[in-house]
Amino acid sequence: MTEQLEQFLTLTIKATQQDLDIILSCFKLEMVKKNDILLNDNETCKHVFFVSSGSIRAFFIDEKGNEATRYIAFENEFITILNSFITQTKSKEFLQATENGQILAISYDDFRQLLYILPIWKDLYIKQLEIAYTTNAWRLESFIKMDAKERFDYLFETNPRVIQRLSNKIVANYLGITQESLSRLKGKK
Amino acid sequence: MTEQLEQFLTLTIKATQQDLDIILSCFKLEMVKKNDILLNDNETCKHVFFVSSGSIRAFFIDEKGNEATRYIAFENEFITILNSFITQTKSKEFLQATENGQILAISYDDFRQLLYILPIWKDLYIKQLEIAYTTNAWRLESFIKMDAKERFDYLFETNPRVIQRLSNKIVANYLGITQESLSRLKGKK
Repeated sequence: MTEQLEQFLTLTIKATQQDLDIILSCFKLEMVKKNDILLNDNETCKHVFFVSSGSIRAFFIDEKGNEATRYIAFENEFITILNSFITQTKSKEFLQATENGQILAISYDDFRQLLYILPIWKDLYIKQLEIAYTTNAWRLESFIKMDAKERFDYLFETNPRVIQRLSNKIVANYLGITQESLSRLKGKK
Repeated sequence: MTEQLEQFLTLTIKATQQDLDIILSCFKLEMVKKNDILLNDNETCKHVFFVSSGSIRAFFIDEKGNEATRYIAFENEFITILNSFITQTKSKEFLQATENGQILAISYDDFRQLLYILPIWKDLYIKQLEIAYTTNAWRLESFIKMDAKERFDYLFETNPRVIQRLSNKIVANYLGITQESLSRLKGKK
């Protein structure tokens, strides 16, 4: 159940077997069902999740009361609500399983403890923070500079599994367009 | 000229004298004059700057052709265009001195080299990445949830030196309001 995480850590931060023994002892396996909520808004985010199979999304409720998906993690990706996790204050976002799957969870305390005892855990955290920062910047820019069709085409090219595996409702609110627009754009492919 | 950085590193990441000798050898002192441009847009950001005295702002030109200030660093703070620095791609923002002052610059290569040889440099980078991520999230939220008066009041309480030391033009485009609105808000204090 932890092979994927082991492989990921060996590849990305060159974890040794000794490192892996320590790291894996901090993760707990959870089976999740599509639509399961892993974190509610107004809760403090106390976990980072590694997706072994399936997918998890971070979303918030916008000012009009509609769901807006900000980020989707698939296999071999980490997800958390970073702002809440870093500051240990209440989250403004939800975490939800978007498919049945398996995830590995590490608690805030164990995560910080690993930073303290394992230098390579710092490398992992730096990589994840860099990805989070540049992804957010890119996403903001894509909403400013691209129209709906350009955003759809970009997603289709760079991360087609979002379109292939998730519901139209989620894909539409991830792209910031209506489901009708999404259907039109899909029809043209 | 490097006392402040030494003190900062001793306090924040418990740097020893040996660490400091290595770190300080990577920084170069630069005297800057108000309005000096340290980075143009469409240039790749190859430095991180530590502000010893004065202040530096990051700004971009918005779709209407107006300057919008995103971040201002004062004494004992670091500044860079993180997105460009991480990915070593062209910056969409400028860096500019907003007062006469002294800054210490470290190059991208030296910064990455320090990450490689000094574990405590990873601690510093993690702290800075966490600050950058949460500051951006907070700033976006403040624009969504606060009106002009609330943003001004918040700035007045939490970082009054912005209002005290910088021009009305910069303060206004940092708050996302007109200079006339800023004058009115200042008049009421």
